[in-house]
Amino acid sequence: MRISRKADYALRAMSYMANQPDGKRSSISEIAENEAIPRDFLAKILKELTGKGLLKSYQGVTGGYQLAKRKSEITFLQIIEAMNDKIKVSLYVDKKGAPLQLFWSELQDTLIKTFQGVTLDNSRYVLRK
Amino acid sequence: MRISRKADYALRAMSYMANQPDGKRSSISEIAENEAIPRDFLAKILKELTGKGLLKSYQGVTGGYQLAKRKSEITFLQIIEAMNDKIKVSLYVDKKGAPLQLFWSELQDTLIKTFQGVTLDNSRYVLRK
Repeated sequence: MRISRKADYALRAMSYMANQPDGKRSSISEIAENEAIPRDFLAKILKELTGKGLLKSYQGVTGGYQLAKRKSEITFLQIIEAMNDKIKVSLYVDKKGAPLQLFWSELQDTLIKTFQGVTLDNSRYVLRK
Repeated sequence: MRISRKADYALRAMSYMANQPDGKRSSISEIAENEAIPRDFLAKILKELTGKGLLKSYQGVTGGYQLAKRKSEITFLQIIEAMNDKIKVSLYVDKKGAPLQLFWSELQDTLIKTFQGVTLDNSRYVLRK
């Protein structure tokens, strides 16, 4: 049971940007290097996060990426869903009356609430001292 | 984020057996049919659950599978781990000091405790009326 690699990297890249000074733009290379994410995969991820309205991208010499909203307005769930990583814990989670369905749906609710409850301004999980 | 298909089916097959009368043996076909699990995949899963000491298998006309222990002694975690589905929520969960590591390790602990806390005699999730 694991988050997709793509969502894992997206959360990491977004948390990197949450730790930059306001208004600073980060290049793909900078993020890839600091977070040890394969560069081409990261480029694709940042493009998709931009398409989903979570990042802004700037062209040119002073270009790069920065968060499109305030840190407090971006939840982990938004980032995960932007990567099309469905939180669907079991084949049976949506099958009303299926054995174990109740177990899975409760677990899924817990996960969704957990991911919804953490934003990029979380000082316990995201912001580094 | 999803449990592996194999662990999903294993939990379902084990919960089917937990709902049978004591001492009753269930055939592969019976479980496959009742739980809508592909027969060949199920055969492989039951064999592995037997190898891991969670099921007993009996040969012959009256043969079949039954739980190797009391329902209260078999947790969801044991079944999932028997299917080699590691509960490893993120690439970074074990990387001390990595960004987000604390978030992932807390989430992982929650999941493990959840799976550990449910056994096959759970009347809310497993046993059918």
